[in-house]
Amino acid sequence: MLPILTGAEDAFDSGQVSVLLCDARGDSIRATYHLNTLLSRRVDGIIVVGSSTDPRPTLGRDLPVPVVYAYAPSDHPADHSLTPDNVAGGRLAVEHVISFGRRRIAHITGNPDYAAARDRAKGFQEGLAAAGLDAVAEPMFGTWSEGWGRDATAILLERYPDIDGFVCGSDQIARGALETLRDFDRSVPEDVSVIGYDNWEVLTTNSRPELTSIDCRLQELGRRSAQRIFEAIDGEPLSGGTEYLAPRVVMRGSTVISR
Amino acid sequence: MLPILTGAEDAFDSGQVSVLLCDARGDSIRATYHLNTLLSRRVDGIIVVGSSTDPRPTLGRDLPVPVVYAYAPSDHPADHSLTPDNVAGGRLAVEHVISFGRRRIAHITGNPDYAAARDRAKGFQEGLAAAGLDAVAEPMFGTWSEGWGRDATAILLERYPDIDGFVCGSDQIARGALETLRDFDRSVPEDVSVIGYDNWEVLTTNSRPELTSIDCRLQELGRRSAQRIFEAIDGEPLSGGTEYLAPRVVMRGSTVISR
Repeated sequence: MLPILTGAEDAFDSGQVSVLLCDARGDSIRATYHLNTLLSRRVDGIIVVGSSTDPRPTLGRDLPVPVVYAYAPSDHPADHSLTPDNVAGGRLAVEHVISFGRRRIAHITGNPDYAAARDRAKGFQEGLAAAGLDAVAEPMFGTWSEGWGRDATAILLERYPDIDGFVCGSDQIARGALETLRDFDRSVPEDVSVIGYDNWEVLTTNSRPELTSIDCRLQELGRRSAQRIFEAIDGEPLSGGTEYLAPRVVMRGSTVISR
Repeated sequence: MLPILTGAEDAFDSGQVSVLLCDARGDSIRATYHLNTLLSRRVDGIIVVGSSTDPRPTLGRDLPVPVVYAYAPSDHPADHSLTPDNVAGGRLAVEHVISFGRRRIAHITGNPDYAAARDRAKGFQEGLAAAGLDAVAEPMFGTWSEGWGRDATAILLERYPDIDGFVCGSDQIARGALETLRDFDRSVPEDVSVIGYDNWEVLTTNSRPELTSIDCRLQELGRRSAQRIFEAIDGEPLSGGTEYLAPRVVMRGSTVISR
């Protein structure tokens, strides 16, 4: 949430924009209450930020200020939404690992009830197919936790000892994979590549080795959302539909061999 | 920041309070700009939240609404501040480890430029002295990172192989300690106890074993801050001075042997 806020404030360099944040905690009654507070406090526009990339209910079409949906897209086709491109991210992750010569690559990810898990797995499989490779195993869906990353990695290594790449659906899962690979005496990145997802720095820069990860560019998502609001205030109406923001790979020691 | 916001909203159960959050990012020009925005938006009170427990400059004494300083206390004695009691937390941490029979206990912590590092170390040494124990070594000050936790733990274990307890100044440092203890084939919690600080759940509940930690009770800090604001609105003026909030220990597998 905070990177999106920071990005929104940075949309114009002047530092003369204040972003006010309210936390609805996933509760629609609280969201309505906060919405009324913000409108009565004369805000100029609203960015609605969700906690997952699953579509969320619209706040309605009759609001007196421009509204943009960030991260979680609105379910109403006339609303304007910006969301990370998780299919592209899954594909980027596997392409990165393939580029280091890996051929026996597995995917461990979180809860399949989340669009983020399904989309990243879809991108992973598209990327493998485009490179003419078969997955070592079906994607392993579980929870977004280090414990699941440890368990799934152990299961995979016992069944398929020749795995040389793990594409993980979150940085937490990837941290678990790194730990189990050390238990199995596999060298990362010399023997096996590991890539995470989300580029959450407290996790990616503290591990041994540091973790390569896919960055959803949340700050850029906030910046673009605020730009759309400013354009609407300047008289350019918001188009309906969803903009997908391309992710990028942040390379660190879990895939790159240091010289 | 977000637990304090959540706590402030929960100060009255009705759900009929909106907390608006602005992020000044440690920049006093931005803070002044946000302050003016909030006042022009007719907020009823202001909670100023800092990112460390070091005293911060006052926003001034002539503001038209009640102001409470949370986490970072104000440097003006007439302002009302609430901050975690880090001396009590350091003492609580070492008392917890002593209660499990540990006698050879070391302290690894972060940057000594932070009051939090100095206060926690002070509490650690007071707790040891009260139990009639000597520290194995002087407190190790470094950075708030897993890498430092790994390095300091290795240094200490090589010099003092009989250490049986690590009191860490942050959960990140404690995660590093757990990793190095596994490298050294020491069993946690059977042979060695480890306790972290901050109770940051993404770190404490994902490690192997899960990490016992000191919780600063940030949500309660937010709740009490909002209560003081409401009391001031109701005509009970804010007293000057700093309230210290007592921490608590959250026990998990890094100190408690499961049966």
